[in-house]
Amino acid sequence: MRADSKGEVRDVRRLMALTGDMESLDKFRCCFVAAADRLLALTNPRRFSPDRRLALQVAVWALRGVTRVILANNPLSGALMLLALYWASPWQGLLGTLGLLTSTLVALILGQDSAEVRGGLHGFNGMLVALLMGAFSSAGDWYWWLLLPACLGSATSVFFFGGLTPVLDRWDLPVAVFPFNTVIVLYFLCTGPDNPYFPRRLAVPPSRSPPNVTALDATEVLRGVPLGVGQIFACGSLGPSLLILAGLCLYSPLQAVHALLGSAVGTLAGLSVAVRHEWLYSGLSGFNGALGCMAVGGLFFTFSWRTHLLAIASAFLSAFVDIALSNLLGSTGVPACSWAATLTATLLLLLPGAPSAYRIPLARVGSPERNLRSRGRWGAADAEERESTDV
Amino acid sequence: MRADSKGEVRDVRRLMALTGDMESLDKFRCCFVAAADRLLALTNPRRFSPDRRLALQVAVWALRGVTRVILANNPLSGALMLLALYWASPWQGLLGTLGLLTSTLVALILGQDSAEVRGGLHGFNGMLVALLMGAFSSAGDWYWWLLLPACLGSATSVFFFGGLTPVLDRWDLPVAVFPFNTVIVLYFLCTGPDNPYFPRRLAVPPSRSPPNVTALDATEVLRGVPLGVGQIFACGSLGPSLLILAGLCLYSPLQAVHALLGSAVGTLAGLSVAVRHEWLYSGLSGFNGALGCMAVGGLFFTFSWRTHLLAIASAFLSAFVDIALSNLLGSTGVPACSWAATLTATLLLLLPGAPSAYRIPLARVGSPERNLRSRGRWGAADAEERESTDV
Amino acid sequence: MRADSKGEVRDVRRLMALTGDMESLDKFRCCFVAAADRLLALTNPRRFSPDRRLALQVAVWALRGVTRVILANNPLSGALMLLALYWASPWQGLLGTLGLLTSTLVALILGQDSAEVRGGLHGFNGMLVALLMGAFSSAGDWYWWLLLPACLGSATSVFFFGGLTPVLDRWDLPVAVFPFNTVIVLYFLCTGPDNPYFPRRLAVPPSRSPPNVTALDATEVLRGVPLGVGQIFACGSLGPSLLILAGLCLYSPLQAVHALLGSAVGTLAGLSVAVRHEWLYSGLSGFNGALGCMAVGGLFFTFSWRTHLLAIASAFLSAFVDIALSNLLGSTGVPACSWAATLTATLLLLLPGAPSAYRIPLARVGSPERNLRSRGRWGAADAEERESTDV
Repeated sequence: MRADSKGEVRDVRRLMALTGDMESLDKFRCCFVAAADRLLALTNPRRFSPDRRLALQVAVWALRGVTRVILANNPLSGALMLLALYWASPWQGLLGTLGLLTSTLVALILGQDSAEVRGGLHGFNGMLVALLMGAFSSAGDWYWWLLLPACLGSATSVFFFGGLTPVLDRWDLPVAVFPFNTVIVLYFLCTGPDNPYFPRRLAVPPSRSPPNVTALDATEVLRGVPLGVGQIFACGSLGPSLLILAGLCLYSPLQAVHALLGSAVGTLAGLSVAVRHEWLYSGLSGFNGALGCMAVGGLFFTFSWRTHLLAIASAFLSAFVDIALSNLLGSTGVPACSWAATLTATLLLLLPGAPSAYRIPLARVGSPERNLRSRGRWGAADAEERESTDV
Repeated sequence: MRADSKGEVRDVRRLMALTGDMESLDKFRCCFVAAADRLLALTNPRRFSPDRRLALQVAVWALRGVTRVILANNPLSGALMLLALYWASPWQGLLGTLGLLTSTLVALILGQDSAEVRGGLHGFNGMLVALLMGAFSSAGDWYWWLLLPACLGSATSVFFFGGLTPVLDRWDLPVAVFPFNTVIVLYFLCTGPDNPYFPRRLAVPPSRSPPNVTALDATEVLRGVPLGVGQIFACGSLGPSLLILAGLCLYSPLQAVHALLGSAVGTLAGLSVAVRHEWLYSGLSGFNGALGCMAVGGLFFTFSWRTHLLAIASAFLSAFVDIALSNLLGSTGVPACSWAATLTATLLLLLPGAPSAYRIPLARVGSPERNLRSRGRWGAADAEERESTDV
Repeated sequence: MRADSKGEVRDVRRLMALTGDMESLDKFRCCFVAAADRLLALTNPRRFSPDRRLALQVAVWALRGVTRVILANNPLSGALMLLALYWASPWQGLLGTLGLLTSTLVALILGQDSAEVRGGLHGFNGMLVALLMGAFSSAGDWYWWLLLPACLGSATSVFFFGGLTPVLDRWDLPVAVFPFNTVIVLYFLCTGPDNPYFPRRLAVPPSRSPPNVTALDATEVLRGVPLGVGQIFACGSLGPSLLILAGLCLYSPLQAVHALLGSAVGTLAGLSVAVRHEWLYSGLSGFNGALGCMAVGGLFFTFSWRTHLLAIASAFLSAFVDIALSNLLGSTGVPACSWAATLTATLLLLLPGAPSAYRIPLARVGSPERNLRSRGRWGAADAEERESTDV
C-alpha cells in the first residue's frame, strides 16, 4: 500500500510538471488533490501514445494562452475562462478556440522560440484577433465565412509578434498585445459596414453627442465594474465576467483585486469627462484601466504600497488614453481595443528613477504572489530560482 | 573696507553659484552687480533656514524650467518670461506657474534624475501642458475646475519624460517637448466643445476653406513674426512677446536672432502654401519655425555658416511639417502644438555626414555663445570644462 | 593587332568597373559586347576631361537610383525604366529626372555616405517624391511652378534618409522608401484641392461607397496585374509598364516573376474585400503586393521554397495593409503610397526563428540570382566576396 501511494504521488507530480506551475495554487491544492487523483486514473500518461501526449501538450499551451489575455499564466484558470466564453456565446467561444490554435500552430511551423510557444504567448494574440472579429461582425452568429479572416488574422499576429520582439527586447519590454491591436485595427480598416463579405458594426466614440439625456443609473455603473473585466475578452455578460474573475482569482487573488480596482478607476475616469452612459454600463470604460492596473500592480513590479499607488495612476492614465484614442479612431468607426493599456504599461516599464527599483526583469516575471516571494531570494538562489520560474 | 568688499564679492559669487550659470551675461553683469548687491542684503543666505533655502532652490529650478520652453537655460530670463505671461493674462500666468511647480515636485517625488530636475527639464513640459489647456479652454478665465486637469496633466508629463528618456538616450537625443505634445493631444482628444466639465475651442486647420477673401495686410504679417516667438508660450499679444524676446536676448543674443529668423521663415512657408490669414497674423505660422531654427542654429550644433544654412532649412521644414500636421490633426479639432519642430529637430540631430561633425554631445549643450567658445577647448580642458558646463 | 584588342578588352573592363556590377547580366553579355564596343569608341575614357567623367558617373548613379525604386540595382535597366517613364508622359519623366538629380546632388553636398550615393540610394527617394507630386497634381502637365516643390521635396527626402539610417541600422534594416513616403504624405497634407498654387487631386479610399454597380470585367482585372508593376513608378499605361518589367527582367528574371506574382496576389486580396473596380483595373491594388513579394522573395532572403511561401504571405499582407491604410489616409484625401509594403517588409526582416536563417545581411544584398549563388561561398571566400558585392 505504501509503495503504491508513493507511486501515485509521483504520478501526480508528473502531471503537475506537465501542466506547469501550480505553485500559486498552494492554498487550493488540498481540494484539488482528490480531483487530480480521479483525472489521473483517466489520463494515465503511461497509457498515452506520443501523438496523444503532443495533443495534450498543445491543449495545455493553448489554455495557458487563454489566461495570457488577462496577464495570468495557468492552464486551469484558462479552462475556466474558456468555459466562460462558451457560456457567453458558443460562437464566440468557437472563434476564440480557432484563433488560439491557429496562431499556436503557425508559431510552431514558423519555428518561433519554443519557450514562448509553450507559455502561450503566441496563442493569446491570435485568440483576441478572432474574438474581436466576431464581436464586431454584423453578419450574425454562425456566419461561417468569418472563420477565414479569423484564421488569417490569427496567423498574421504571429508575424507581428516575431517582428516586434527584437525591437522591444532592446529595452526588456514585453510584446504584450501589440500584435493583436495592430492586426485588428488593420482588419477593421479593410472592411466596413457596407462590405459585402465581412460587414461590421461601427465603433461609436465615447464622447459622441447627442449628450446624455437620461439620468445616470448608479446600479448599472456599478455593474459595469465587473463587466470591465469581462470586456478584456470582448464579453459583455455579467455571469461569464464573474467566472473569468474567478478563474483569475484561482491564479492570483492579488491580480483579481487589481483587475476590479482598475476597472473601477476606469469608470471614475469615464465619469470625470462625461462619456456616453452606454460606455460606462457596458464595461468598455473599465477594461483598459483593469489591464493597466494589473500590469503595474504586482506583475511587472514587485507589490508594495508604492507600486500600488503607481498601479492606480496607471489605471487612470490607461483609462484616459483609451477615451482619447477611442475618440480619435472612433471618427473612422474603429475601436481602440487595448492600445491604451498596452502603451501606458510600456511607458511605465521604461520609467527610470524610483519605480525602476521595483521592476522585475522580464525573464523573472511570474504571478504577483510569486514575484513578492521570490524578490528576496534572487541574490542567494539565482540558479535554483531560474529552474522553477515561468518565463 | 578692503576685507569688507572682498566678503561682498564672495557673497555675490555664492549667489551666482546658487542661481547657476551667469556666464552668458558677461556684458550685462556690470549693471546687475548693484542690483544683486541690494538683493543680497535682503536675501543673505546666512540668515536662511534650510527650508527657505530649499524653497529658493525650487524657485530657481522652476525659473530655469520657464526658459527651457524656448530652449534657453537661465533663471533671470525665466523671471522676465514669467512676468510677460502674467502681463498677457494673469490667469494663464497662474496656470503656467501651477504646471511648472506640479511637474517639478512630481519629478522629485518619483525620484527622477536630480540633474534633470535642477535643470528645469521636468518643469517646462508641465508648464506647457497647463498653458495650452488654458489657451484652448472655452470656459473663460478663472474657471477653477481647470486646475484639476492642469495638475494631473503636468504630473503625467513627468511619466512620459521618464519613459521616453531611455529610448531616446540610445541615439543621444533630447526628450524635448515630446511629453508635452503627447499629453496635450490626449487631453484634447478626451474633451471636446460639448464636454460639460472641460469644454474647449476647436483648432481650425490652416488650409481650411473658405479661402482668403480679403487682401493680405503686410503690417499684420510683419507683426506676426515677433508674435511667433510669443506663441511658443501660447501668448498672442505683442508686448509680452517682445518681453519674452528680451528675456531670451539676455540669455543669448544669437538664440534671439535665430528665433526671429525662424519665425520669419515660418511666415514665408505659410505664404507659399496660402494658409488662412489669421494663421499668419496670430504668429501660429511662425512658432514652429522659430523652435526649429533655434534648435539647429547654435544650440545642438556649433554655430558656423554651414549650420546657419541648416538652421534655415530646419525652420522651413518645421513650418511645412507644422502646416501638414495642423491640417491632419485639425480635422478632429486638435492643434498640432510643437510636434513639427520637435520631430524635425530630432531628425536633424540623427543626420550623419557633414552636419554630424558640428553636433554637440547632449551632455555638453550650453548657450550658443558658450558652445562656440567651448568647442575648441574640448580636447585640452576636458575635466575643467565638465565642471562649468550646464547639463 | 593582338595588343590592340587586348587594350580594347581592358577598356571594356574599365567601363564595366565604372558602371558597376554587370555580373547578373552574364547571359546577356554576349549580345551587349558589340554594343559596348561601339559605345566605347564614342566615349573613350582617355578622351574624357575629369568634369565629363564626373558627369558620366553622376548619370550612372542616377540610373542606378531609377532601378532602386523597384528594388533592382543596374544602370542599364534604369535607362530602360526612365525611357518607359518618358514614353508614358514626358512631363512625368522630366519631374522624375529632376527629383533624381536633385536628391543625388543634395546628398553629395551634405556629405552623406558615398557608397550610398553611388548605389543610387538617395536618388530614388527624391525621384519618387517628384513623380508622385506630378501624378497627383491637378494643375495639368507642364505647370512649371511644380518644379519648386519637386526640388524641395526631393532635397528633404535626403534629410529623412540620413536621419532614419542610424535608427534602422540598429536592427540591420534598410531605410528603403520611408523618406519618400513621409515627405509625400506631408506635402499632400500641406496642399489640397483648393490650394491656389499647388492644387491636387484627392485620393479615393478603395472601399468608398457607392458600391460597385457594374459587373467585374475579368480582362480589365488581368490587365491590372502588369499595371501594378508600372504603378510602382506611378505609371498607369500598359506599354510603359511592360517596358519597366522588361528592364527588371534584364536585372533579374526571378525578381520580375515575383513582381508579377505579387501584383496578382494583391489583386486577389483586393477582390476578397470587394474594393472599387477602378482600384483593381488601374493596378493600384497590385503594386504594394508586388513590392512586398519582391523584397522577401530572393532579395533580402535567399530564394528557396520556404522563402517563396513567405514571399506570397508578404504579398498578401502588404496588399491588405495597403487597403487598410488607403482607407485610413483616404478619409483626408491622401494616398497611402508604398507605406504598406515598406512596413510589411521591415516587419518580416525583423522576424526571428526559421525565416531569419535565410536572411541575407544588408551589406551582402545583391540580385536574387547572385544571393542564391553567393550563399554557399560566404564561409570560404569571405574576403574575396566582399570586394565583388554591391552594397
